[in-house]
Amino acid sequence: MATGNQRRVLVTGADGVIGRAVRQYLGDRYDLRCLTHRPAPYPSHVGDIADLASIAPAFAGVDCVVHLAASPSVSTPWSDILPNNLIGTYNVFEAARQAGVPAVVFASSNHTIGMNEIDNAPSIYQLDDPRVFDHLAEPRPDSLYGISKLFGEAVARYYVDRYGMRAVCLRIGTVRDDDRPGDPEVYGSVPEPLEYLTDEQRRERLRATWLSRRDCAQLISRAIDADDVPWAVVYGISNNPRQFWDLEHARRTIGYEPEDSAPV
Amino acid sequence: MATGNQRRVLVTGADGVIGRAVRQYLGDRYDLRCLTHRPAPYPSHVGDIADLASIAPAFAGVDCVVHLAASPSVSTPWSDILPNNLIGTYNVFEAARQAGVPAVVFASSNHTIGMNEIDNAPSIYQLDDPRVFDHLAEPRPDSLYGISKLFGEAVARYYVDRYGMRAVCLRIGTVRDDDRPGDPEVYGSVPEPLEYLTDEQRRERLRATWLSRRDCAQLISRAIDADDVPWAVVYGISNNPRQFWDLEHARRTIGYEPEDSAPV
Repeated sequence: MATGNQRRVLVTGADGVIGRAVRQYLGDRYDLRCLTHRPAPYPSHVGDIADLASIAPAFAGVDCVVHLAASPSVSTPWSDILPNNLIGTYNVFEAARQAGVPAVVFASSNHTIGMNEIDNAPSIYQLDDPRVFDHLAEPRPDSLYGISKLFGEAVARYYVDRYGMRAVCLRIGTVRDDDRPGDPEVYGSVPEPLEYLTDEQRRERLRATWLSRRDCAQLISRAIDADDVPWAVVYGISNNPRQFWDLEHARRTIGYEPEDSAPV
Repeated sequence: MATGNQRRVLVTGADGVIGRAVRQYLGDRYDLRCLTHRPAPYPSHVGDIADLASIAPAFAGVDCVVHLAASPSVSTPWSDILPNNLIGTYNVFEAARQAGVPAVVFASSNHTIGMNEIDNAPSIYQLDDPRVFDHLAEPRPDSLYGISKLFGEAVARYYVDRYGMRAVCLRIGTVRDDDRPGDPEVYGSVPEPLEYLTDEQRRERLRATWLSRRDCAQLISRAIDADDVPWAVVYGISNNPRQFWDLEHARRTIGYEPEDSAPV
């Protein structure tokens, strides 16, 4: 239940996998406002992020935007990447600026650097493999989707530098509604160059890249509350034994402390 | 005059400032094919890079694309950035891939990292200032134009990694038809945060960022010919005494040796 002194947080893509986790775990902590593409069974501003005018009213009086809306699949074709991930992300930052919103949390992706993983797969999924990519890893997108998230990070950085906005980019791993990374029937989606992976390798990868819904909500909450962090790019996974993306920078910059971990 | 064993090089934006330099200096060295937005007084394929179908035929049988076509001003608004720099650049790489073109030279820009300069201006323009930004400088675009060039670099990297293409991204400084960086009447355009610069500071900046038309043509030629360089991001300026972007990486990777230098 919202109270008067809570932060007013606009969640774009509130009906997606991560949006559902945000509404479940953070609905009491913030005064959440939802932006959805279609009418929802909860209060929501309905608009298309590819159309700035249709979403602009939702940004009035907001303290922070959590920008989740996008075509979420790593195999999304250009025809959807263009409106939903490129134009849409520009529109969200521009609508935030026009409305005077001081902060944006942007759902980026590990696919911004996915080619680094691909070059080191599948051995990098092994339990004893020491390799870890951090926020300084070379930008090497593995897909048009990954390109679109690098674009979003560039837009975010520009709005920080140019307009004094605050932005945290979360390179999110694999969030699933079922929250069951140990289920043998469960596989995460992979970029095309990893389609050669065996079922077992895909299970290992998912156990490395998993982000529990609860940890995802905590990560987003830490980013919303990090008033003294004008800019950060951090990875988002649970405390997984097979992890190969850095969590130290997320701990140090925004205080993220994952509570869950995937099975070995 | 083209001969049978010359490389077939498609130049997009052949009627622009850099396109004119390429046609003047490299017309004898390569079998140049021109792509222009409007009919030109020389042989040209006319098409709009924002429309893939309209440009695709120009890529048949080409050995290398030099992609110059874009809205070139640092103050270009989103309405032009979107078709001309974002959609257009994706279309050029995709058309190259579809036609089996093995290499692309992409006209990127120093504005991909422009906020680094802005944070250090105007003292960085001074003759005795030792600061130099290289290809590893943090991506910090100073404009929507700079964002669009980072997007283009990400697209280039993806096509290299995913499709085995070769790409060299040239972060070009200031090329001018008049080739007169010492003219007191001459000023380069600056991003909005630098509009406070005095006339004298703008002259100093131009003398730091200048790339002669001849050196620009050499830089492009080295990139076209660098068959053993699958990927590089390099800066393009002449050998200017006030330079604050790195030239060593361009020398080392593709053998660029500027012949001109701006006056002190």
